[in-house]
Amino acid sequence: MSAAATPELILIDGEPANELPVTDRGLQYGDGLFETLACRDGRARLLSLHIERLALGCERLGMRCDALDAIRAEISAAARVPHPTLIKLIVTRGDGVRRGYHSAAARGQRRVLLRYRHPQESPELALQGVCVRIASTRLGENPALAGIKHLNRLEQVLAASEAPQDAAAEALMLSSSGRLVSGTMTNVFLVQEDRLITPRVDRCGVAGVMRRLVLQLAAACGLDAAERNCAPEALHTAREIFLTNARIGIWPVRRVAERALPVGEVTRRLQRELSARLADA
Amino acid sequence: MSAAATPELILIDGEPANELPVTDRGLQYGDGLFETLACRDGRARLLSLHIERLALGCERLGMRCDALDAIRAEISAAARVPHPTLIKLIVTRGDGVRRGYHSAAARGQRRVLLRYRHPQESPELALQGVCVRIASTRLGENPALAGIKHLNRLEQVLAASEAPQDAAAEALMLSSSGRLVSGTMTNVFLVQEDRLITPRVDRCGVAGVMRRLVLQLAAACGLDAAERNCAPEALHTAREIFLTNARIGIWPVRRVAERALPVGEVTRRLQRELSARLADA
Repeated sequence: MSAAATPELILIDGEPANELPVTDRGLQYGDGLFETLACRDGRARLLSLHIERLALGCERLGMRCDALDAIRAEISAAARVPHPTLIKLIVTRGDGVRRGYHSAAARGQRRVLLRYRHPQESPELALQGVCVRIASTRLGENPALAGIKHLNRLEQVLAASEAPQDAAAEALMLSSSGRLVSGTMTNVFLVQEDRLITPRVDRCGVAGVMRRLVLQLAAACGLDAAERNCAPEALHTAREIFLTNARIGIWPVRRVAERALPVGEVTRRLQRELSARLADA
Repeated sequence: MSAAATPELILIDGEPANELPVTDRGLQYGDGLFETLACRDGRARLLSLHIERLALGCERLGMRCDALDAIRAEISAAARVPHPTLIKLIVTRGDGVRRGYHSAAARGQRRVLLRYRHPQESPELALQGVCVRIASTRLGENPALAGIKHLNRLEQVLAASEAPQDAAAEALMLSSSGRLVSGTMTNVFLVQEDRLITPRVDRCGVAGVMRRLVLQLAAACGLDAAERNCAPEALHTAREIFLTNARIGIWPVRRVAERALPVGEVTRRLQRELSARLADA
C-alpha cells in the first residue's frame, strides 16, 4: 500500500546494475527471500534481527547462506547516506542452469539490493491511527513456508488490490481456516482485557522483525504478551489494535471495517518504548 | 525434475534480450503467470489451450491480457525450427513504479519467452513407466490461486528438492488437508474400478493443459472420467496410475513409493488416443 519513488541505488551481488538474467529462479519460481529495512542517520535499523531472519529463511528453503556477512556489510554501506531510506534486499537461489524445480538445478545465489528514499509519511498516521479493511483474499496454510519472508507474495498482491489504494492504510488477512493472521505488509496486535495478543505465524504469515521487537518490549514492560490463535471476531472486541512493520514501527488502528476505536494506552506506551529503543540502537 | 540446457532463444516483449529490470514484479512478488509448451515439427502443440489458460490466469489475477494475440504469434514464430523445443512463456505485471503490493503500483506488463531444446528423453519412460515418490511438503489451499499457473512455486521447489534428482521421476503432493493433488510438475490420474479419476484442483494445484485434453479424450472414448476429491490411500488401490503434462504427454507410473503396479490398458489406450490427436493437431 505504501508508495515511494524508483530506487536511487541498485546493486546486484555488490555491483551497480539494474537488470538480472531471466533465468534467475527468483523470477521463475519465486525461489528466494527478501528483507525490507528502514534506515535513518546513515544506519540500517535492526540490522541484526533482519539478518537473523534471513538466515532462518535460507535454512528453511535449503539455500546456502555463506553471503550473510557480505550482505550485512553491503546494507550498512548502502545505508550510509544522510537522508532516510528504505533498503530492500532480495536473495534468490540464482540461475537455473537446467530446467525444473529441483534446487540442484540452481547455480550460485544472487543478491539484489534496492535503496529507495524513505517515503514522506504524515506523522498523523502514528499519532491518530489508521483505517484498515478486511481482505477477502485469504492466506493458504503451509507450515513449510510460514514465518519466513519468501518471494511468493501473490496472496498479498491480490488482497492489497481488492480496493483502491486510498480505501484503507492496510488490509487484514485471514487464513484459509478463518483465523486472523496479519496485514498484507504488517503484523497485527490486539489488546484484549489486559493481555497483548498477536496471531501465531506457524501456518501462514510472516514473523516480522518489528513484531519480534514489540513482543520483547512488551515483556520488558511487564505486559502479558503472547502469540495466539486468533479468531477474527477479536477485531470487534479488542480494546486496542495496532499494526507493526520495520518501516512504520507501530501504527494504531482507529477504524477496522465499520468499527471505530480509540488509540489506547498500551499502544502509546509501546510506541514510546520503541522510540527509545530505536534512539538507542 | 527434468533437465535441459540453457535457453537457445530469449525474447523480452518480442526483442532478443537476456535480462530484465530487478523492479519487475515477477521477481519482487511472483506476480505473474507462465506456460510451458512442447513444440515439434515447427509447431507449438496445443497452443490454443495454453493461451486459454493464460487468459484465465490473467483474469483471475486482475492482469490485463491485451497482449494475447502478440503472445500467440510470438510463440508460433519461435516454434518454427526443425528440432523439437520447449517454450516457456512468462507474463508478469511489469515494473513496480512504486513500492508495495497493490497492483496499481505496476506499470505495463512484461512477457518473457524462453526456448529450450527439447530434452532427450528415453522412450522407455512412456513405455515402461516411471517411479514416483510421495513428497512430504504439502500444497497450501487457496481457491484464489488454485488451478492457474502462477509464478509462486516455492512449494514445488521444496517438494522436488526433498530427495536427489534421480531418486524418482516425480514427487506426488498432498494438500494441507491431506488430499492427493498432483505431482510437482504433472497432474495425476488413477483408474479405480472402471473409472478414471483425477484430483480436483479447486483448492490447490494446476489445471494442466494435458490434464484437460486427457479428460476430453477419455470422454470421447466412452470412459467414465471425473475430477474428484482424492484420498492418498487411492494410490495403494488404483489399478492404474499415470502422470500428464504438456511436455511428457502421458507417463505410466510403475512404482509409487513401495508399490509396484503394471501399466494397464486404460493408460495404453489413452496414450494411443493422445498420439493420434497430437498427430492431427
